[in-house]
Amino acid sequence: MAVYTEVTDEALAAFLTEYAIGDMVAFRGIAEGVENSNYSLKTTAGDFILTLYEKRVDPADLPWFLGLMAHLATRGIVCPQPVRARDGEALRVLAGKHAAITTFLPGVWPRRPRVEHCGPVGGALAALHLAGADYAPRRANALGAHGWRPLLERSRARADEVQPGMMAELDTALTDILADWPADLPLGHIHADLFPDNVFFLDRKLSGLIDFYFAATDSLAYDVAVCLNAWCFETDFSFNVTKGRALLSGYEAVRPLSAAEKAALPVLCRGAAIRFLLTRLYDWLNTPDGALVTRKDPMEYVRRLRFHRAARDEHAYGL
Amino acid sequence: MAVYTEVTDEALAAFLTEYAIGDMVAFRGIAEGVENSNYSLKTTAGDFILTLYEKRVDPADLPWFLGLMAHLATRGIVCPQPVRARDGEALRVLAGKHAAITTFLPGVWPRRPRVEHCGPVGGALAALHLAGADYAPRRANALGAHGWRPLLERSRARADEVQPGMMAELDTALTDILADWPADLPLGHIHADLFPDNVFFLDRKLSGLIDFYFAATDSLAYDVAVCLNAWCFETDFSFNVTKGRALLSGYEAVRPLSAAEKAALPVLCRGAAIRFLLTRLYDWLNTPDGALVTRKDPMEYVRRLRFHRAARDEHAYGL
Repeated sequence: MAVYTEVTDEALAAFLTEYAIGDMVAFRGIAEGVENSNYSLKTTAGDFILTLYEKRVDPADLPWFLGLMAHLATRGIVCPQPVRARDGEALRVLAGKHAAITTFLPGVWPRRPRVEHCGPVGGALAALHLAGADYAPRRANALGAHGWRPLLERSRARADEVQPGMMAELDTALTDILADWPADLPLGHIHADLFPDNVFFLDRKLSGLIDFYFAATDSLAYDVAVCLNAWCFETDFSFNVTKGRALLSGYEAVRPLSAAEKAALPVLCRGAAIRFLLTRLYDWLNTPDGALVTRKDPMEYVRRLRFHRAARDEHAYGL
Repeated sequence: MAVYTEVTDEALAAFLTEYAIGDMVAFRGIAEGVENSNYSLKTTAGDFILTLYEKRVDPADLPWFLGLMAHLATRGIVCPQPVRARDGEALRVLAGKHAAITTFLPGVWPRRPRVEHCGPVGGALAALHLAGADYAPRRANALGAHGWRPLLERSRARADEVQPGMMAELDTALTDILADWPADLPLGHIHADLFPDNVFFLDRKLSGLIDFYFAATDSLAYDVAVCLNAWCFETDFSFNVTKGRALLSGYEAVRPLSAAEKAALPVLCRGAAIRFLLTRLYDWLNTPDGALVTRKDPMEYVRRLRFHRAARDEHAYGL
């Protein structure tokens, strides 16, 4: 779930007077998302989402995220739009946290991704990449390849509590990934977290993308690798190559991958797997008992990583 | 939070075809409530709440709860209304759980109750008691006085882990409560859990009551005692007698308390405190690490119980 910060009704009422979005009708915490506190907010003018940015989001990055979302919308990407208050500012403070109201997106995220979801996801990711091309500001990817070694070090002392031998396996895997990491793939703004709970569907069509708070400037093909990890494994951690093919075909129908991007897919997938593995591992070891968060099992990404390490080339993914 | 059961989009889509409430627009888990899984459901016909009943709710009781909610509405109480499917049934099965769709209530629950909330809460509670009078079916209160001794026994072995001496204090308190428990106060259907998160306000007016899944047939004045515990203590566990007076005056403006009910308030308050103390204690000792539930500190009710044990008579509550 994700409601870390409680907003009192008085504080909320005062906050809403800063906006011209009608009067309050309802306000409920949303049990989705992991990083921030999200509330569904209904006013006499319609439905909105109120987000309070929690500790993992650097406030200095918020204008970049909100700017990207606004930019993408002008290029036809359906994503939440920051709502400006009467003074023109979308980014504000509520209950001691940075906060923003965004528009409400219709749709339901697929709890069990099927092949038919994967093509549209690939297409939407490619459209997102093209749409971001003329958003000039850049944001370094703190959770990109340069960040993985320091992240692994933070779990070194206790990684083997999760599984004996874990640290040795990760050391080897990460050394190999960084040695093989491609240096000159096409860059752009990536979503970097396009998991099923961030993609809405309605009437079997993709209806919108949400949660841009991991977005950054990085290799576009790395974003494809994130999606292959997020959408194409079955619950037994087998890789469904039909899903992989659908996702890649959907992507290439909008933005063809270069030969270098294709060849790099196995190492990009290893990198994407270790990125989620490392944050999950850290959270697993450092989430206090009773915290309002579902700890996600890092072993799920060890299983994915092993698949990628065994992949001979890009054909393993359905290309 | 409260989303224990995930509903797949396919299962939800199939479920909705059983209803005549339009087409799906959105579906999000709600981070509120403790006992059941709640989703906010938006269709082309409007907003609804989908509840999946989890293990603490006995399926045999569900028709009684839904029937009470429907009955109360016919008597002017604003509360969620069960939505019947095309076959006339409101109670159904989804994702292996009993489930019902209810109407959406506008309003926001007060995160920090103030004196001005307490009068309307008292009035609404009394109106609920009167409105329930001609709902014939009865439901025994499993968490009423008869249930407290067995509940305490379930925590006996480990209660002192929470605080040394806890078990001895509770043994004495419960023995005294049961010895003093009034036998012949007016009975009726009580909400039994009218905490601030179950009372909505809009424009400073009480706009509705929710969550009737602890409702039962018991002493009406015991329900008042639950509210005194829930609404009138400050965050430092001091009792705010101005709030108590407002709540009781609000109640009595609609349904005057008898002399016997007034005289029983201290023991009823001790009983209400130990009831929430005992379930919190059990949950505290038995909630697995990483569960999607906020464990509530049982010590908060030890503090309330101590206040009630020191109360000389009903005047301690503002009467």
